[in-house]
Amino acid sequence: MENFTFDIIGRQGMARAGVFHTPHGDIQTPIFAPVGTQATIKAVTPAQLYELDANLVLSNTYHLYLRPGDELVAAMGGLHRFMGWDRPILTDSGGFQVFSLAAIRKVDDDGVTFKSQIDGSMHRFTPEKSIAIQENLGADIIMAFDECASPYDRAYNERSMARTHAWADRCLQAKTRADQALFGIVQGGVFSDLRRESAQWMAGKDFPGIAIGGLSVGETKSETWAMLEVVIAILPENKPRYLMGVGSPEDLVNGVLRGVDIFDCVLPTRLARHHAAMTLTGRLNLSNAAYTQDPAPIDPECTCYTCLHFSRAYLRHLILAREMLAATLLSIHNIHTLLQLVRLMRSTIISGNFDAFAHEFLAAYQGNELVPEHED
Amino acid sequence: MENFTFDIIGRQGMARAGVFHTPHGDIQTPIFAPVGTQATIKAVTPAQLYELDANLVLSNTYHLYLRPGDELVAAMGGLHRFMGWDRPILTDSGGFQVFSLAAIRKVDDDGVTFKSQIDGSMHRFTPEKSIAIQENLGADIIMAFDECASPYDRAYNERSMARTHAWADRCLQAKTRADQALFGIVQGGVFSDLRRESAQWMAGKDFPGIAIGGLSVGETKSETWAMLEVVIAILPENKPRYLMGVGSPEDLVNGVLRGVDIFDCVLPTRLARHHAAMTLTGRLNLSNAAYTQDPAPIDPECTCYTCLHFSRAYLRHLILAREMLAATLLSIHNIHTLLQLVRLMRSTIISGNFDAFAHEFLAAYQGNELVPEHED
Repeated sequence: MENFTFDIIGRQGMARAGVFHTPHGDIQTPIFAPVGTQATIKAVTPAQLYELDANLVLSNTYHLYLRPGDELVAAMGGLHRFMGWDRPILTDSGGFQVFSLAAIRKVDDDGVTFKSQIDGSMHRFTPEKSIAIQENLGADIIMAFDECASPYDRAYNERSMARTHAWADRCLQAKTRADQALFGIVQGGVFSDLRRESAQWMAGKDFPGIAIGGLSVGETKSETWAMLEVVIAILPENKPRYLMGVGSPEDLVNGVLRGVDIFDCVLPTRLARHHAAMTLTGRLNLSNAAYTQDPAPIDPECTCYTCLHFSRAYLRHLILAREMLAATLLSIHNIHTLLQLVRLMRSTIISGNFDAFAHEFLAAYQGNELVPEHED
Repeated sequence: MENFTFDIIGRQGMARAGVFHTPHGDIQTPIFAPVGTQATIKAVTPAQLYELDANLVLSNTYHLYLRPGDELVAAMGGLHRFMGWDRPILTDSGGFQVFSLAAIRKVDDDGVTFKSQIDGSMHRFTPEKSIAIQENLGADIIMAFDECASPYDRAYNERSMARTHAWADRCLQAKTRADQALFGIVQGGVFSDLRRESAQWMAGKDFPGIAIGGLSVGETKSETWAMLEVVIAILPENKPRYLMGVGSPEDLVNGVLRGVDIFDCVLPTRLARHHAAMTLTGRLNLSNAAYTQDPAPIDPECTCYTCLHFSRAYLRHLILAREMLAATLLSIHNIHTLLQLVRLMRSTIISGNFDAFAHEFLAAYQGNELVPEHED
């Protein structure tokens, strides 16, 4: 486990600034990981991500198992070499995708049987299989196979949490590679006692980091933050905490305020493909006619490649002309925005100004889309 | 016209190595210009093109006039600033696209009326209008408005050539900007006497460069090269010669052998979007199953970003997963291949080894797709 020590170098309230050591380099926390579902962050190259100083990317076990296949990735030298990315990678367990994407699935205490959405073939994931796939892929951080239940069904969440714990034990047993950090995942829906129990269970095991799963899956925001607070109060100080699938600017700030170290989300790249630019004050929809003749960059304060070189008018033109470059330039901007935000949080935690920063940020942030002056 | 001098710094046979001076920098010839139809080279950023050392790009007057509109581009500071490209740009006249793309068009001696393929609205291009649009766009090299006729109709080519000459005169009259070089275009179909007449006409006018149009539009390759030889024998030595719309590796070599200095073509980026990689020995279709587990780059000799970092297996995965990155990485490789080829031609012309290079190249080049060892 020496590979995966976590040093906390600054604190303010519950917020922490840290360094998580991995075989492919140090991760400065808090960190946001862009998602490369199919072994590529959609529409951007690894070189562009290096230029953004992205340090951790997530890729999806479920997708890579189905296509191109984890054995192919292993034969090509592992996921880092395959996708041309030599910094840390995190793979999820495949569990969440089986439960959210597979049209037909049947879960039992041993695992899940499901139908491929690519060719209709039948497959089975168990904790052991998930670990075997993730070992073939070779990410630095791998995840225990879990069940993400619908958040409000108490009885189901009880059974599902017990299953997630049993599966986490089996993942610990199945794991063979010393150069991968296996994180456990806390579940328990919106039920404080279940969340507490799950956090205690995970805290008692030999995981170098712990994730909080099953949040941002349909519950209210106040439930999200309440559950997060319950869980983090129990998790050990000296291990990184990963809030899965969360990535709006306000959620990142709210998460760090409550002690989260790692985030991932498809939001910046998905919004980019849907013409939306993220800024630290809110979202712009670049297809809006108000930007037709707008010579300004997305965000005049932003220092990303897109904002240094291109106008809103040009981005709108690319969108209307259905040019792929629109997705590339917006993805670069959106990823930059979230990375800037986590870097700002890190530096203000270290300097002791994080609380002020966070409260100003949340007061100024517009949850809804920013409306341009002259609306379409 | 001092902006646009052309210095020839090396010759071998008909081939020349030169420097064409423009307000946005020198163009080292022979040069290949990637095409950015809608003010973007599809799927690549200007930064990626700078990294490839691309020096000239082409953009289409017809497309930009229809969307976003040349006046909008002018209001945004011109095409260079609009598309974030500060090196030379060439715009075509819009003529070729009106004749090849517009569903409904009616040509008369004054101009062409056509229907927009975007919204069905009616528009009219004249020589004066084409120049006005190109002055709004602000490219370094602009083209006279011409008619590109079907190559085999003798009577039509006679009339059309006369019209092209009259229009070229009107373009020279209409032109007002001193920072743009207006090139005339030789037409004449597959008829040597018409080509000769058109070349003589263009050679007698005050154009800083002359294009050869109406080739690679359906005639045979031997007709292409025969017409090119007829034309170039007449064109002045001290002006750059631009063979429009030609861009396969063997065509570039055949063109330079016959004295061409400038080429443009959609081929490298279009092939990229159709999964084909260009190499200096032939084409690879990366969707082929033979590349499923192939750890080699597209071309082991190639030094482009794509070949230095990614395997054929990864590119095939991206293609099958319908990931945009496939088009980006293949476009980078294909543009690099053609730029490497023109750079090689330039250096061998200067060193006196071009004839040997060209003949070896043409002997080794496989016109058809390279077939991998284990075919699908």
